[in-house]
Amino acid sequence: MRAVIPFKQENAKSRLSDILSKTQRQEFALAMLYDVIAAVERSKKFDFIEVINSSISCAMNTTFPSIANILLIEKGLNETLNEYLAKAASNKVQDIFIIMADMPLVTEKQIVEITELPGDIVIAPGSGGGTNVLSIHNPNKFHVDYYGTSFLDHLRIANEANQSIDIYDSFLVSTDMDEPDDLVELLIHGHGHAVEYLRSTGIDLDTSTGRLDLSNVKK
Amino acid sequence: MRAVIPFKQENAKSRLSDILSKTQRQEFALAMLYDVIAAVERSKKFDFIEVINSSISCAMNTTFPSIANILLIEKGLNETLNEYLAKAASNKVQDIFIIMADMPLVTEKQIVEITELPGDIVIAPGSGGGTNVLSIHNPNKFHVDYYGTSFLDHLRIANEANQSIDIYDSFLVSTDMDEPDDLVELLIHGHGHAVEYLRSTGIDLDTSTGRLDLSNVKK
Repeated sequence: MRAVIPFKQENAKSRLSDILSKTQRQEFALAMLYDVIAAVERSKKFDFIEVINSSISCAMNTTFPSIANILLIEKGLNETLNEYLAKAASNKVQDIFIIMADMPLVTEKQIVEITELPGDIVIAPGSGGGTNVLSIHNPNKFHVDYYGTSFLDHLRIANEANQSIDIYDSFLVSTDMDEPDDLVELLIHGHGHAVEYLRSTGIDLDTSTGRLDLSNVKK
Repeated sequence: MRAVIPFKQENAKSRLSDILSKTQRQEFALAMLYDVIAAVERSKKFDFIEVINSSISCAMNTTFPSIANILLIEKGLNETLNEYLAKAASNKVQDIFIIMADMPLVTEKQIVEITELPGDIVIAPGSGGGTNVLSIHNPNKFHVDYYGTSFLDHLRIANEANQSIDIYDSFLVSTDMDEPDDLVELLIHGHGHAVEYLRSTGIDLDTSTGRLDLSNVKK
């Protein structure tokens, strides 16, 4: 089974720009990628872990974990992944596991459980209608359509291709880091590189209100 | 096992007041309660289902599902629940399952899974540091502390009382309805009374943006 992690460091996480500088957002994105790769690796379910990096200029200055292959493809997310699926299909490769790089709460437990579900397509929703994990048994019978309410689009695409579907229900997998409020979840539930990085910037949790404490931020 | 559902209809869901009128928010709160009661009932895990209603004036005008006992207690949430736990403990009643009334995505599947976990305390986190389900095996060794980051408070209280803890990881359970963005999740993933009620107000989903479509709202 192959794990594919799309990753974008350039202009990463722009909706966090009120509280993190551009450099901090790039470092934070990389720390989250490290957490996702670690969880994928610890699951022991994959022969290959491939990071698809969409920015060559950023990638040249970045140290990626050596466990992952780094593919440099400067195209949009859907085009890149659909070309990847088409190539896998023509090479008779099955079982492509696409996991987003910005969900640092995921652990090997959820990844193992997703890979063990029987559906042709397993979808783990992200908040706001997103798709945070897609496990695709038959790459020749599926294509991705991220952006908008991709969760509903992926259900529709699977149904149209007569692929059986399992939906994986997980708070940890659904929680991606887009908005400042998402950082609250990371500070409460996180244990890896990303939460450590976030704390190093001075961002902390105000436990009395459940909101971010930005009083010590060094932006 | 007893299920306890705290419910507040008066001034319910004030953070939705930009898009729902006071009457609509009360009706929406009741529709969510119906969904939660239905899921609890279908799990077939409970001898008693008790709704603790904190507003007598509202309750008199409300038709509750006949399956549930309605207790009228006009006190704060923590005080009410801690008195309930103390009474259960003095009556040697074990296994109190506290579930919030504003999480209409929950189904019997999650409730069954929570009740089958072995921990003395099982906690299902809500978004933003909340606690959406608390399953308490020994009511004499626990007290609740909602508000703020109650998830962390409940972990601490359980640890201090040497109670073993399981954390139940579910997107459907974690999603409560506080903010307009939460309604997006209900429109995408919901199947019960609450989503039906929401659609009847004219609120719908804009699938191209993943945001609420309020163009047909009749407030």
